[in-house]
Amino acid sequence: MRGKIILEEAWNLPRLSWDAVNFASPEGAKIMEKAMPDIVGRIKEMDETGIELQVLSFTSPGPQISDKAAEGEALAREANDWVAEQCKNHPGRFANFAAICMINPQEAAKEARRCVEQHNFVGIILNDYQNVCNEEAPEWAETGPDPNGKMLYYDHPSYDVLWETLQELEVSVYLHPRLHHGEFYKKRPWLAASAHGFKTQLASHILAMCTSGIFDRFPKLQMMFGHMGEGITADLWRLDHKLDRKRFPTMPMSNKKLMRDYFANNIHITTSGHYSTRMMQACISELGADRIQFAIDYPYEPKLSNGATWMDTCPISESDRLKIARTNAIKLLKLDRAPFNLKLDATMEELNVGGLQGHVFGIGQY
Amino acid sequence: MRGKIILEEAWNLPRLSWDAVNFASPEGAKIMEKAMPDIVGRIKEMDETGIELQVLSFTSPGPQISDKAAEGEALAREANDWVAEQCKNHPGRFANFAAICMINPQEAAKEARRCVEQHNFVGIILNDYQNVCNEEAPEWAETGPDPNGKMLYYDHPSYDVLWETLQELEVSVYLHPRLHHGEFYKKRPWLAASAHGFKTQLASHILAMCTSGIFDRFPKLQMMFGHMGEGITADLWRLDHKLDRKRFPTMPMSNKKLMRDYFANNIHITTSGHYSTRMMQACISELGADRIQFAIDYPYEPKLSNGATWMDTCPISESDRLKIARTNAIKLLKLDRAPFNLKLDATMEELNVGGLQGHVFGIGQY
Amino acid sequence: MRGKIILEEAWNLPRLSWDAVNFASPEGAKIMEKAMPDIVGRIKEMDETGIELQVLSFTSPGPQISDKAAEGEALAREANDWVAEQCKNHPGRFANFAAICMINPQEAAKEARRCVEQHNFVGIILNDYQNVCNEEAPEWAETGPDPNGKMLYYDHPSYDVLWETLQELEVSVYLHPRLHHGEFYKKRPWLAASAHGFKTQLASHILAMCTSGIFDRFPKLQMMFGHMGEGITADLWRLDHKLDRKRFPTMPMSNKKLMRDYFANNIHITTSGHYSTRMMQACISELGADRIQFAIDYPYEPKLSNGATWMDTCPISESDRLKIARTNAIKLLKLDRAPFNLKLDATMEELNVGGLQGHVFGIGQY
Amino acid sequence: MRGKIILEEAWNLPRLSWDAVNFASPEGAKIMEKAMPDIVGRIKEMDETGIELQVLSFTSPGPQISDKAAEGEALAREANDWVAEQCKNHPGRFANFAAICMINPQEAAKEARRCVEQHNFVGIILNDYQNVCNEEAPEWAETGPDPNGKMLYYDHPSYDVLWETLQELEVSVYLHPRLHHGEFYKKRPWLAASAHGFKTQLASHILAMCTSGIFDRFPKLQMMFGHMGEGITADLWRLDHKLDRKRFPTMPMSNKKLMRDYFANNIHITTSGHYSTRMMQACISELGADRIQFAIDYPYEPKLSNGATWMDTCPISESDRLKIARTNAIKLLKLDRAPFNLKLDATMEELNVGGLQGHVFGIGQY
Repeated sequence: MRGKIILEEAWNLPRLSWDAVNFASPEGAKIMEKAMPDIVGRIKEMDETGIELQVLSFTSPGPQISDKAAEGEALAREANDWVAEQCKNHPGRFANFAAICMINPQEAAKEARRCVEQHNFVGIILNDYQNVCNEEAPEWAETGPDPNGKMLYYDHPSYDVLWETLQELEVSVYLHPRLHHGEFYKKRPWLAASAHGFKTQLASHILAMCTSGIFDRFPKLQMMFGHMGEGITADLWRLDHKLDRKRFPTMPMSNKKLMRDYFANNIHITTSGHYSTRMMQACISELGADRIQFAIDYPYEPKLSNGATWMDTCPISESDRLKIARTNAIKLLKLDRAPFNLKLDATMEELNVGGLQGHVFGIGQY
Repeated sequence: MRGKIILEEAWNLPRLSWDAVNFASPEGAKIMEKAMPDIVGRIKEMDETGIELQVLSFTSPGPQISDKAAEGEALAREANDWVAEQCKNHPGRFANFAAICMINPQEAAKEARRCVEQHNFVGIILNDYQNVCNEEAPEWAETGPDPNGKMLYYDHPSYDVLWETLQELEVSVYLHPRLHHGEFYKKRPWLAASAHGFKTQLASHILAMCTSGIFDRFPKLQMMFGHMGEGITADLWRLDHKLDRKRFPTMPMSNKKLMRDYFANNIHITTSGHYSTRMMQACISELGADRIQFAIDYPYEPKLSNGATWMDTCPISESDRLKIARTNAIKLLKLDRAPFNLKLDATMEELNVGGLQGHVFGIGQY
Repeated sequence: MRGKIILEEAWNLPRLSWDAVNFASPEGAKIMEKAMPDIVGRIKEMDETGIELQVLSFTSPGPQISDKAAEGEALAREANDWVAEQCKNHPGRFANFAAICMINPQEAAKEARRCVEQHNFVGIILNDYQNVCNEEAPEWAETGPDPNGKMLYYDHPSYDVLWETLQELEVSVYLHPRLHHGEFYKKRPWLAASAHGFKTQLASHILAMCTSGIFDRFPKLQMMFGHMGEGITADLWRLDHKLDRKRFPTMPMSNKKLMRDYFANNIHITTSGHYSTRMMQACISELGADRIQFAIDYPYEPKLSNGATWMDTCPISESDRLKIARTNAIKLLKLDRAPFNLKLDATMEELNVGGLQGHVFGIGQY
Repeated sequence: MRGKIILEEAWNLPRLSWDAVNFASPEGAKIMEKAMPDIVGRIKEMDETGIELQVLSFTSPGPQISDKAAEGEALAREANDWVAEQCKNHPGRFANFAAICMINPQEAAKEARRCVEQHNFVGIILNDYQNVCNEEAPEWAETGPDPNGKMLYYDHPSYDVLWETLQELEVSVYLHPRLHHGEFYKKRPWLAASAHGFKTQLASHILAMCTSGIFDRFPKLQMMFGHMGEGITADLWRLDHKLDRKRFPTMPMSNKKLMRDYFANNIHITTSGHYSTRMMQACISELGADRIQFAIDYPYEPKLSNGATWMDTCPISESDRLKIARTNAIKLLKLDRAPFNLKLDATMEELNVGGLQGHVFGIGQY
């Protein structure tokens, strides 16, 4: 399939040293470190794998690890401006989520606005909780795994200024995991990151946000997260069943709503690093195909072709393939506008989807 | 759920005697005979079951059983005018498919145009093959189960004038079964009609049309059929696998296309009389939820509430429920225009979909 | 996966000329004609594709096309003895279904018994209806597509002697399609055989048998048919819904039973020529994995590797893969007995199922 | 359906005060507190809902909260003996998992053996991690949420003596969650327990055990856990994808195995408190129906009828319904032996599964 769009794709500033061995074998780490700061060089593999556009994110933890606002905000600005510059000559191939420091909500909203208005960014990315030093920590900051400071979760009403800005600008927020170092995981490092710990921590944060009533106050806000729903999709029924209003009268979310309702109106999931056919099918069944979007998780997934081949051939309907691999992203992120100018109504023929040509029956596409 | 739309719903002219014992038990037949010619009386049960609008069809076989063009055309006009009159004071509750005699393709196209332009009909209904007497039979008519005449299948290019008209008018064609009386079924009447024979005969006709290249010549033509796809959906893979172009060089359909492509661009199926949750799920997976539409098959299914309860509660995503029970039909049949004026963007709250109210966990909705 | 078993695999007597152009392109027909009478030569490709054993059937129509009992019975005996001889030195690689002429039910039962007791055959194969000349036709024979004779369907109680024998011998009956030549198909030959006509005709016959009460009288009889259920599986709900006992008081099957009950206790389907992942998943969901068995339909499907690759990799659970590709067949056909001696409790490791080795994530296996 | 078996059903000692407000609304808590110590009184509701047998567990945290071995072991013995006494006159209606203190592995193994040999218990239940006071803590104990002591996870090789005993006795281990009180959850109590926190904590523990190589050393050990797989099932693909052996050379589990392999050979999940039709279907697809078992989670789920109605009617195959609701449990727990004497080969008729009687089409059973 031509014209695919991917939306959880990482990069790093060339000036930053970055130790990929937390995320790859020694051999893989070298590839990853080289791939991270190279933006334009990605176009070749995108062409080879039918990927028209990738939405870029400054890699985790980004400004979330800065525990001083000034430092984090400067890093965010630097990162956002650098990547905007890299992409400006390739408007049909790249879009961006803005990195944002979350210590000062007003400043976070300002940087979001600046990136959208000045650089045409299509949303913001938040890498799980925000570190904050004790000096700058608001009263409601929480104790986290880092003993020398505090952590901020985004279910606090202080962030309403940011959500209001995003809703007004009609751009999305992408929630992304970050590594945390509890004792349990130090003994079992294989479970710490992408295998298990990432989703565990991030799902808790997402659920905190959802149950805080954020979508009741900002009903047009659109949130995205990856890895086939960070384990939440599969447990929607039990979640709604157990958020018993009689039992939890202090829970802020509307007592007329189910979590399922937010998934139908405010939440999108992506396939990043989770190319599982049966989970794709289960998520289509649970959420509907309009709420699922293709993503690779490059360069943590070092080859675009693995995910792209799966997206091209996994046994879902062609109608859903078009939506998930392309159209949903164009609609949500408004990629049919300038400067991106992607074609919203491209036909199956134009995208090389369906048709007899090259079809090998028996290889499991359907 | 409020606001549901159903689209394979039958009626009969009051003047016509009609023997329902072919389709129901003696007891059920009485109910059916009474229900058939009563249009306005249906509103009460529609209100009780959350059905906003039903699309009406003159019951099978309709003009398809007339073997003389003049007779069939007169019957079609009478039926179309009668039902238009019944519905005119309830424009938000009923829409219509036009009955059409298929002996003379030009006249068929004219009647279709008349019904759309004069009565705002949203498509035509064809009840499988058309009878035709020997005197009026074209050369290409075929021998059928009726010894005193011939039968016409709509894969013949003579009908292009009709498809062209429908494409120009942007209205759909609904293919519906009719009873046929082969020797096999006379000995086993329980298999003759809705249990098996209907789909067997109609699926053959539909496949003849599709493989005739009708959608290659009229790429915007939209065809619908009921009963969860008349058995075709489940066999799409094998169908495409076995329509081997090297083996069948004379097959007219484009040799760049799969049947699956037509199902993605030109075909819609409905749930009439087939309220099977797992087939619904399988069809969503195979075709995508945009191509499936709710239908009851009233009064062959004598209670709206059976199908409506299933549609309201079957375990599919709320997003897909909205599409299948309502939005797909509004879009395809343009029911958001006058005189219907249905609301295309009704919210889940307005339609009473989702939300906590009345939810009983454990009863299988999800 | 090693150790797979396939069970709808055809062969032909070397002495019989057989025109494969009804079933393949001119080029494909040559391959097919050569493959048909070669039994032992199949072992090489079986080894290459991980197929331990194939269950052979004398190709359709076999004795079903003989319209005289003596001729059909002689052909059946010749075929059964010939293939038994071919296989006798390879008892772990081939098993057989007996060809049977169905004009004389007592003789049919005798030949079934002879093949089971003398040759260790594991069941019988019937290629849809039996031709019979007017002279030998019983009163209840039906008019069929062949004007010079009659046809026999197996829902007649005359065949109880055969079902009783099969039940006593604990062997199965496989129902297989045969080509028929109605006028509709003469004009549209691409729909006549495997694309559509086969399943249409055979499904009617199977449903006639099931609704005749055959499984009420012989509750341990086991029936198999291929092509993912000949279209019946997908319509089970509607079938049971429409076999309304009040409406059809003369239908012979027990009025306490659903067709679904027979599918749970008496019926098995195979994947022959229908390597559709989503239909596999839908059938697992509808029937349970214990009732589905792998089959290729060689040499109509000319390469074992297409189906074998699909079976090895299609996204189903490994537990179901083992059952469908192997264990179900061993249990049903008792292939763990001599002379076959297949291992019933082979582990995943022994069968090379699961495990890390060679696993490429992203290629859609799961 | 008659004859159902449920297997995550809690009880409490009458002498223990127990504050149910952590698990229910004030109103619900009263019902729960009353239900907990009443064993024989459950039979009435079991009869009403078609439940033949329930497998009982001393409610969480049980001996896992005792931080001194002597205290925990005494509590376990008291609990095991008390419940055995309650059940002894109803051997066909109750079976038991033994409560076990995990501070001293040898004593744990002894108590397991005693309960199996003396009381016919069918396995053990472990409520997540074991508390241990600093004085009794082994070197490898870990810091947990309780500041006055340590916690023990069962992936340590010290427990091999227990797994060896269970494997020898051919009984299972059920892993069950327990409440933990991190700061995150104190602020958001609605997420702490069954809605999210339970599965998060328990899944980490289970994955630690699986990746410790426990099933490599004890390949016949059978582990069960509830709530549709504690969120693990849905992420099996990503889990196996990310447990990259090159990256984690110190991970103890066999480098020839996938987590998926353990799910196919050593792990069973139950439906306790998670009556989600689509997750049931997804788990059948992912694991196969042989590895899923019905459970209610009584009295945390205060009405047997909610779960039982769902199990009776959710749209899965009747074949899978029998396995999940009954046969799998009989086989795994050997409930066909004395003193239970459950019938392993009960027919669909005997269990009132399938058949026409009482069937209402349109209510979504299929």
